[in-house]
Amino acid sequence: MSTPNRQDPRLVVVMVGLPARGKSFIARKLQRYLNWLGYRARVFNAGDYRRQRLGAYQAHDFFDPDNPAGSEARKELSMAALDDLLRWLAHGGDVGIHDATNATRERRRLIRERCDAAGKRVLFVESVCRDASIVEANVLATKLTSPDYVGMDPEEAVQDFRVRIAHYERSYVPLVDEDGSWVKLIDVGRRMTLNRIGGHLPARIVYFLMNTHITPRRIWLSRHGQSEFNVQDRVGGDPPLSAKGLAYARNLAEFVQTSIATDKPPRVWQSMLTRSRQTAEHLMLPTEPWKALDEIDAGICDGLTYTEIETHHPEVFTARRHDKLRYRYPQGESYVDVIQRLDPMILEMEREEGPLLIISHNAVLRALYGYLTGRAMEEVPHVPIPLHTLIELIPTAYGCNEERYFLGPVA
Amino acid sequence: MSTPNRQDPRLVVVMVGLPARGKSFIARKLQRYLNWLGYRARVFNAGDYRRQRLGAYQAHDFFDPDNPAGSEARKELSMAALDDLLRWLAHGGDVGIHDATNATRERRRLIRERCDAAGKRVLFVESVCRDASIVEANVLATKLTSPDYVGMDPEEAVQDFRVRIAHYERSYVPLVDEDGSWVKLIDVGRRMTLNRIGGHLPARIVYFLMNTHITPRRIWLSRHGQSEFNVQDRVGGDPPLSAKGLAYARNLAEFVQTSIATDKPPRVWQSMLTRSRQTAEHLMLPTEPWKALDEIDAGICDGLTYTEIETHHPEVFTARRHDKLRYRYPQGESYVDVIQRLDPMILEMEREEGPLLIISHNAVLRALYGYLTGRAMEEVPHVPIPLHTLIELIPTAYGCNEERYFLGPVA
Repeated sequence: MSTPNRQDPRLVVVMVGLPARGKSFIARKLQRYLNWLGYRARVFNAGDYRRQRLGAYQAHDFFDPDNPAGSEARKELSMAALDDLLRWLAHGGDVGIHDATNATRERRRLIRERCDAAGKRVLFVESVCRDASIVEANVLATKLTSPDYVGMDPEEAVQDFRVRIAHYERSYVPLVDEDGSWVKLIDVGRRMTLNRIGGHLPARIVYFLMNTHITPRRIWLSRHGQSEFNVQDRVGGDPPLSAKGLAYARNLAEFVQTSIATDKPPRVWQSMLTRSRQTAEHLMLPTEPWKALDEIDAGICDGLTYTEIETHHPEVFTARRHDKLRYRYPQGESYVDVIQRLDPMILEMEREEGPLLIISHNAVLRALYGYLTGRAMEEVPHVPIPLHTLIELIPTAYGCNEERYFLGPVA
Repeated sequence: MSTPNRQDPRLVVVMVGLPARGKSFIARKLQRYLNWLGYRARVFNAGDYRRQRLGAYQAHDFFDPDNPAGSEARKELSMAALDDLLRWLAHGGDVGIHDATNATRERRRLIRERCDAAGKRVLFVESVCRDASIVEANVLATKLTSPDYVGMDPEEAVQDFRVRIAHYERSYVPLVDEDGSWVKLIDVGRRMTLNRIGGHLPARIVYFLMNTHITPRRIWLSRHGQSEFNVQDRVGGDPPLSAKGLAYARNLAEFVQTSIATDKPPRVWQSMLTRSRQTAEHLMLPTEPWKALDEIDAGICDGLTYTEIETHHPEVFTARRHDKLRYRYPQGESYVDVIQRLDPMILEMEREEGPLLIISHNAVLRALYGYLTGRAMEEVPHVPIPLHTLIELIPTAYGCNEERYFLGPVA
């Protein structure tokens, strides 16, 4: 297991809140973060169970708390999702996320009982919107593309969805102290209440939720320009840029200058290494150096060519080819180590609301790119991050838009 | 500046809460953490200003909100502390902590106005106790040793202090949304509310406050036993223990076994290096390896003796002697880098409520010891952490009790 803390991480995260409060958004974002950190996390969405078993569309009266047949059916679907979640945890999962309204105390008591019986800890995550405009935007934006209303007239869909929300409002009881360990997010993190949060993983989850926001902005990723070591096929070290690398630094500056004529200038983060600093030099923007952005530490292989590694350290060469993710260079780092040390950067990146330009190195950018685009940890060491190419990512509600700009010269 | 984030950190932390709610405890703990991270943080305590200007003892009617002379005097003292704080920020301070009750909206508005005028951000930190037993314990424990009641009959002091608290209760208004950016700690962190928290440093402060607790427990620090490289006076590498080092590992196990006959067994954290793992081997306890506990990375000097460093890298030898804290080994780390990477460990250590045994290395333990005992960052590289010696630290309300056990053999 790759997580830094060896205590049993197994945890059930139970979402709570009315429809259109961003529960699924939070659930998926949390899943993506935990997967990236190396935890096996999975969302179990009660709506998916309903659509799968009862078909996509259910008229709003299905959600009426005074409709006993509907109530019973909804409870069964929610419990089916929970049972699958607990089974999955028993077979190697770390964090199961129960994505449903869970709006009543009775329902939450039932969930807690089943989790207690399975010996699993529970953390409730409630999303509350006091600001009607946030709810309205969610109703219009997300729910028009909801699988519940496929092929339906948008006006009618919105109308039906509003009535469904009103049904839930009648029985909804927000979390109180007796619900145990919980986090309440109010108006997309503008306010947050934490109740009885204990343990490593709940604290990390809460800190992550504390730092996320939903304002769209662009994140640029760039490797340093070609270095003298790139030319020689050497790893690590602290070489300066080659002539081509210096040309890329100028091309990058020109591209950024043109782009920011119509947008806020980005904050620029760079590693502490010479090739990264030189790449940022022509930007004419303030830069912030981070040790966490330095390239993977190749330990005893630092400064060698790949051929030399194969010749002098054949065991390294083979082991690394066998498991590039977990293999740690002797006295150096593995990709998993790099991911761990980038965790504070991810939180800083999440917190930042404006555009960012991150100038760093192959392994580090693979990890950051993997996080932003929701890649599984296993894929991280194999993401292509070519030289002299600016990667533009714009995180959206459920994913990430991507553009790649080759700025040259050919390296 | 050594902090990883280059944005202007300057911040005024304003404590809020009735007397005996642990405000000074939180303020000092926060100061210690921020100083250790390399920020210049300082507490400005309004009570100190009162005692200095008006003498130690003031009868409770001084604190009566219906006593205009007392109210005016208290306001002036609080503002004097704030003015000194702002002056200090203007001359190089990073975080000023205003430690006073600040119980009324009027007072908080006044503070905000002065901070706004000085261009400084404000973060309110309120401590609330709904649990009367916590307040009662604070009244009895802390306030009997308060400088306000020196030489006074304890019964009388407690009586006077209770009336003083009642005076404040009459005018106290808890923080509301309009107060801006704030954290409310309820019943020593059992519940916490965050309102409009933004920016790197406020997020870190909040995360730190989230993780602290006040349960006393012991923390044991131990270097690995003597290694083959210690014998040769070499730095870094991944050598095994020497015969003497193996003897220490057995002595340590025996000492720990004897101690835990009467206490909970500690969680054992160790670095990923062989000498640390071998030192923990005889404990017969589960161990958790942390990459963050690995020794300072000596970069190009890894594996050399100090004499070889002086001969082959005289510039390293001299530069390091000149500024051992900030000097970074080429392609390696500085003490400041070590402190940064230990930050998540400190939070994990704070969160843990039971005993801990940390088996690590000289530079890393200097940093952890420096944090626990409130050393300034500058002192960290010079703390003596001898081989074959177990350091026992028990954090208390305002400091740390320390015992050192030499377990042998002489290395």
